[in-house]
Order: sequence, then structure tokens, then C-alpha cells
Amino acid sequence: MEVNDTDVRRERCDPDRPAHPGVFLTREAGKSDHQPAGLSVDFPVSVVLPAGGTGERTGLRTPKQFCSLLGRPLISYTVQAFERVSWIQSVVVVVAEENMDLMTDVVQRFRHTKVRAVPGGSTRHRSIWNGVLALGEGEGEGAVVIVHDAVRPFVDEDLLYKIATAAKEHGAAGAIRPLVSTVIATTSEGYLDHSLERAKYRASEMPQGFTYDVISRAYQRRGSTQSFTICPADRSPTSGSKCSESDFEFGTECLHLALQYCGTNAKLIQGPPTLWKVTYKRDLAAAESIIKDALSRSACVITGGSASGAALAGALREAVGALGTELEVVPDLRGENARCLAKEGNFILVSVGPSRPSEVEALLTELEAANRALLHPLVVIWVHMSDSDELSVSGRAAAVMDLSSAAKLRNILLYGIQLHPSKIGHMKTKQPGSHVWKSFYLCVLPFDI
Amino acid sequence: MEVNDTDVRRERCDPDRPAHPGVFLTREAGKSDHQPAGLSVDFPVSVVLPAGGTGERTGLRTPKQFCSLLGRPLISYTVQAFERVSWIQSVVVVVAEENMDLMTDVVQRFRHTKVRAVPGGSTRHRSIWNGVLALGEGEGEGAVVIVHDAVRPFVDEDLLYKIATAAKEHGAAGAIRPLVSTVIATTSEGYLDHSLERAKYRASEMPQGFTYDVISRAYQRRGSTQSFTICPADRSPTSGSKCSESDFEFGTECLHLALQYCGTNAKLIQGPPTLWKVTYKRDLAAAESIIKDALSRSACVITGGSASGAALAGALREAVGALGTELEVVPDLRGENARCLAKEGNFILVSVGPSRPSEVEALLTELEAANRALLHPLVVIWVHMSDSDELSVSGRAAAVMDLSSAAKLRNILLYGIQLHPSKIGHMKTKQPGSHVWKSFYLCVLPFDI
Repeated sequence: MEVNDTDVRRERCDPDRPAHPGVFLTREAGKSDHQPAGLSVDFPVSVVLPAGGTGERTGLRTPKQFCSLLGRPLISYTVQAFERVSWIQSVVVVVAEENMDLMTDVVQRFRHTKVRAVPGGSTRHRSIWNGVLALGEGEGEGAVVIVHDAVRPFVDEDLLYKIATAAKEHGAAGAIRPLVSTVIATTSEGYLDHSLERAKYRASEMPQGFTYDVISRAYQRRGSTQSFTICPADRSPTSGSKCSESDFEFGTECLHLALQYCGTNAKLIQGPPTLWKVTYKRDLAAAESIIKDALSRSACVITGGSASGAALAGALREAVGALGTELEVVPDLRGENARCLAKEGNFILVSVGPSRPSEVEALLTELEAANRALLHPLVVIWVHMSDSDELSVSGRAAAVMDLSSAAKLRNILLYGIQLHPSKIGHMKTKQPGSHVWKSFYLCVLPFDI
Repeated sequence: MEVNDTDVRRERCDPDRPAHPGVFLTREAGKSDHQPAGLSVDFPVSVVLPAGGTGERTGLRTPKQFCSLLGRPLISYTVQAFERVSWIQSVVVVVAEENMDLMTDVVQRFRHTKVRAVPGGSTRHRSIWNGVLALGEGEGEGAVVIVHDAVRPFVDEDLLYKIATAAKEHGAAGAIRPLVSTVIATTSEGYLDHSLERAKYRASEMPQGFTYDVISRAYQRRGSTQSFTICPADRSPTSGSKCSESDFEFGTECLHLALQYCGTNAKLIQGPPTLWKVTYKRDLAAAESIIKDALSRSACVITGGSASGAALAGALREAVGALGTELEVVPDLRGENARCLAKEGNFILVSVGPSRPSEVEALLTELEAANRALLHPLVVIWVHMSDSDELSVSGRAAAVMDLSSAAKLRNILLYGIQLHPSKIGHMKTKQPGSHVWKSFYLCVLPFDI
């Protein structure tokens, strides 16, 4: 069951972290080594995002695409992945009638701007066709339509670019992945008939792209009285055997329609492993782990200008560097340093001496003004290096808990760490890099739970 | 990209929770509706578990099978899934030479008894063959050998039984799953050639079973000078074209070998979605979510016999019942109630009035004596319903933090919740059912972080 494909080996060396995580691209585009800078296309590109599932197949009460990951529905992540791409004009989300209000609410709450929601049809193909129709012919002239899945949130600009340009050139294009399992043919009695040579086959994934002309011809011809057959096109010749409309009803592969009705052989483009489709409940946990991983990649440490604050920040930087997290250290957020407010990443506020909750409050206010916690939770860790010997948790707890509770409503998770110089070696912490604080007594204040 | 197979629809209605979670079966076998009671076979069954991966393909420093989930390596979960099955005699784990010590340590630490570790070969097939050889001929007479993956921890007794008996009857058997993606054939230039009719094909998964005779003949003939070809047996006739030994080196499908060398068409048996293979880093998060879900399915509430403790327990039971969690409520663990110590599930200890950490300590001692936290973390929540108005966190914090720290070393996670009658409506909690405590002020003590 091992995968032997050389391409797969290479790809798996990237342990699952999306090269260009959707949640960050807007601000970071063009900055990473991996991110092709300044991508653009000279033709209109729109997206149709079928999200019509009602969840009946997952056993969850909420359809997967509306399940919440870190306080935000999956579909909002997927929409954002397209919205951040400057050369994508509009996104049509096709949802079941009963979820229209839910979708409208998502669009408003997370301030999506390129999105329209339209009601879906009874099958996946009908929903996609509804979406294409909603784009309208004007929008369609010379345009490329990208079709994606609402439940594949980690699609990056680089792949979208490749799909869009290949679709423009070849009429159709689709993302593929190597097969993970051996594919076998079964006999009608349930025995192994033969196994396929894995290297010759690929899994067809999303996104797929089509010229407006190809996708609309494919769907229109399907509906016409012309004698197009719509059989799943196994290699075996299908000529002579005509399939009924019901094959269309249950078919799911757009690339197949383009081939069948327009004679267009789609260009295939290998995508990263993070393209996988969130299918089972466990996949929600997997997706959340990817998002959390991405969110913890950078942080800004505000030292307050003190020497011990700077020393702590230095040691911290060394420790978390080994984990692939980048730390920017600044004394404050004034002047040029205010740029940190706009950057992705969490915040560590170091204060030395007497406790001053007002410092924390000021930071929270600034973060809220910068709209930093709209799309994902922001973590603020207040490290208070106390110079007193007293473990004064209860005294300040109530006030800071209130602060933390209020912050949480604004999607900011405030944690407090109190470092005491007294109890050497008595440190407890969850944070991998924290051995650098060995000489302090650490106590997490019960700010909020 | 939607799956239309009716079988899949039905299966997906079980939202990913393994019907027979490996972590619990030993004690729960025969109790669930889904669990066939008293399975047994009248022939010897052994398991070969190739776990030779060194992790190079995942990008993680630790090979996946040794990655820790809730403090325990993945491979220990997989081993336990076989150990709990009474009719499985022995498990041979085949590991890379450099991981032999690691595996020996796992066996000792988690007290596995049916397991032997043997060094692996340079390819998956060689490793499996090493494992089969380690079983020995005596063990092999009339026996069935089950081959599984170390990184598929959620395999249940029911499926193992089906595989073993089908292998005994037909010579070979293997688990299959419906295809999730459309499988397409590509042209050499990277274009879509044709797509396969999904209904005719399946993904070949693990476990697979073979009679000792079939698997040893398949491997021995491979090594002989006889002119067996070992081509991936695509439907296209391969006669005339002889493949080199290197095809064997890179092949991975045991079912194929049985067909190629012994003419045995394996019986195929559909498995549940939880059979999936932990491949990417995100899959570790997914696996952990399944284990956590299983671990949170039941709890024992010890009320201490007080009326308010019983009232809290009743309200709690109602609330968590909606989440599918079962609560057993007892006044104490004396006499007949001591049975709760042996049952799977977590503990909620309710105490009313003055705080008595000694109660908690006594429970922890009993749990340790019952060896309850060997295979997974055990959660103990101490709910202290204070009758005083004072929010006395700091006073007791240090003593209880020490208790919690000590418990953590024994794999028991101790949490404290203090309920105060004073600040009505000021309740904060993560626990879904906690609205029943509306009239209390809730504060999580910083027992341990």
C-alpha cells in the first residue's frame, strides 16, 4: 500500500503544510520564496463553488461546508482563498435553498466582497450549471470559469494560476494527485479481478478550469436533443451503447463532460496534498490542525524596552526558531513599529515590574482597530515578569479575566503568564520553547476558559 | 467529485466514529449492538505488521508509526487493536534496524504481550516476507496470516474476522473501500485520456489475509528461477512481456502476488472509512480526534452522596446525553460501585462544602492501583461546589497544582472547577453541557498546564 511514485516522495517531504496557506496570502503575496510574485492574467476569471450539500451523508447536523473551524465556517476559508487572488473577479457560491440565509450571513459576517450566493439544483452538475448561468454571458466572453469544491479550503494562487492559464490555452484543465491506494477491478462476485498499474492513473481532484465556451457548450449539449452519449468513458469503446440522462444525473466529473461533448482533452496539473477534500468528521480536525499550524508561524514580541524583556525575547526567538516560528522583536508599536499591527501573527507582550493591565488593554484596542481578528482568532500572551516574591494570582485575576472575556468576544484569545523569580525550577508550561525561562516560576492566570 | 455509490452514502452516515474503536474493545467486546459477540476461529491466526518506514517521506523527524497520540505512539494503538482479539495468536512487527530499540521500548512500556519485533528488509515486500518467515513453519501449519499497516490504528475485530475467515476459505482476502476521487488515465503528454467508471473499481486497503501456504508460495516463487512474470496486472494482456525483478522491488500489493503466483483471486471485503492510512501530518490530528472522541464517550460521576452533588450529576447527565456521552452516577466507589474503577471512561468527582484535596488524592491512588491510565490519558475533573462567597483561588492553588503535576506523570489529567454561588450568570466554560450550572460562578483552577 506504499506509494512508490517518485513525485509523491518528493511531495511528502513537505509535511502537509500548504506551501501557500489560504489564510495568509492576501498580505504575504509575493513575499515568500515559493510564491510566484505578481501573477496576473489578461482574461476574466470567475469561480463557481458548488456548496449544495445538506450534510445528510456526513451524519453531522451541520453540512460540512458550514462547520466551524476556529470560529469560522469552512466555506469562508475556501471563499477567502479565491478572494485574496487579485485576478479573480467573482465567486458564485451555489448553495441549497435552505442554506441561502446561512450563506448570506457568512458573507456579511466575514465581509466577503466578491461573492454571490445562488440556489443549487438537484445534482452536482445542475448546481454547477446554475452557477455558470449566474455568471452571465457578458461575464463569460473570453472568460475562464474555475470550478472548485467548497470543502477544499487550502487552494493556493499558484495552482489557480496554472489551472486558469492551462484552461485558457487548452479549453479545460484539472488538478490531479497520485493515487494513494492501489486501484483494483472487482468481479461481479466480489473477487479481485486485476489491479491497475498505479503509475498510469491519477486521482482527479479540484480545482478544474474551463473556458466559458467549453463548459457552457458541454452543459447545453447535454440538455439538447442531439444524440450525445454520456457514459463514463471507460477505455472500452462506448459507441453503439447509448446511456440515459440518468448517467448525467449521477455523473460528477466535469472534465469528462468537456471530453464527451466538446472533444476537449483537459490539461492535467499536479496539485499539493493539501488539496484533499474534507469528507469525514476527522477531516475537520485535520483541517483545523493545518490552520493552527499556519497561524502559529509568526509572532511579534513587544518587550516594553526593558533589558530583561529583550533578554527574554532573544532567548524565545532562539527557542521557537527551531520550531519554524518567526519572531519579530520590537520595544513598542510606535512609529515604524506600528507595521507589526498589520502583519500576520500573534503577539507576546512582555511587561516587567508591577502589573499594568492597562498596557494589555491598549494593545487589544489597537488590534481591534486594525481589524486583526476578523478572519481568525488572534492570540495575545501577556508575559508578566514580576519582581515581587508574592504569587498574587487572586488579587488581579477578576479584572484581567473580565478583560480576557471581553477580548474573546472580539476573537482575541488573551493568555497570561506570570514569571516569578522565586521558585527556581518550579516552572510548568505547555510551550515547547519555554525552557529558556527555567529560572522563573510560571503560573498561567485563569484569564478565561 | 462527489461519491455516488450507495454503499458510501450509507457508510458516511456514521460520521467517522469507528463502530468498534480499537482502544475500547477488550472490555466492551460483545456489549455493543454492532459488535458480533464471541467471535472465534478454529485455525491459527497471526499478524505481520510492516512498520519499517523511517519517516523520510513525511518530513517529520519521527517515523509516523512512532509519532505520539495522546502520549502513546501510533503503533501501540495498532498493536492493541490486534492484541485485544482473543483468537489472534501473535503479532510480528517488522521495523527498520535503527528502530528496533524504540519498538522494544514501546512493547515494554505499554505492556504488549503478543508482540515480537523483527528487523525489516529493504522494501515493503521483503519486510513482509521477513515477518512471515519469523512466524515459522510450525506456527504456519493451516494458519492464516493477516498483513496490516502499522499506520492504520482503527481496525476492528469484526473486519479482522471477515478477512481471516475469507482468507481461510479462498486463500486470500483483502479490505476495500469505494473510490473517493474519479480515477483518470493520462496521456504521456499530461492530458486526460479517459476516466474510469467509478462503480467498477475499488481502492485496495488493509488488512489483507492469506493462508500461510498462499503467502509463502507467492514469496518463494518470486525468488525462484521459474519464469513467473511480475507485472502490475493491468487488464491489457501481459503475456509475452516479461518484467524484471525490479517490478517486484517496487510493487506493494500482496493481493497481486497471490493472484500472479498462486492463481488466487482474493475475496474482497468492504471496510469502514476509519481504515484510512495515516499518511500526512494532518492525519495525526485526525487520528487523535477519533481517539479523543472515543475516550469522551463515558464518564463516572461520584457525587459524594450529597443532594446538591446528585442534582448536579442529574443535570449533567441530561446535558451530555445529547452529545452521546454516557454518565454513570454513583455516591462513592465503595462495595459494588467499585466496578466503576474497571470501566472505561473518565471521572467527575463532585465535592460540596470545604475543599478537601485528600478526596481527590484518594481517587487518584485508586485509579493508579487499577492501572487505568496505562494506555491512554484519563481525565479527572474535580468539581468543587463551594459554599463560601470568597473566590479563594490562590490559597489552595499550590497544593493542588502539585497534586495535578504528580498525576500528570501518571497519565492522569486533573482539572478543577470551582463553583461559587455568588456571581450569578458570570459563568464561563468550554464544556457544552455546562449551561446547567448557570447559577454558579465557575473558575478553573490552574492545577497544571
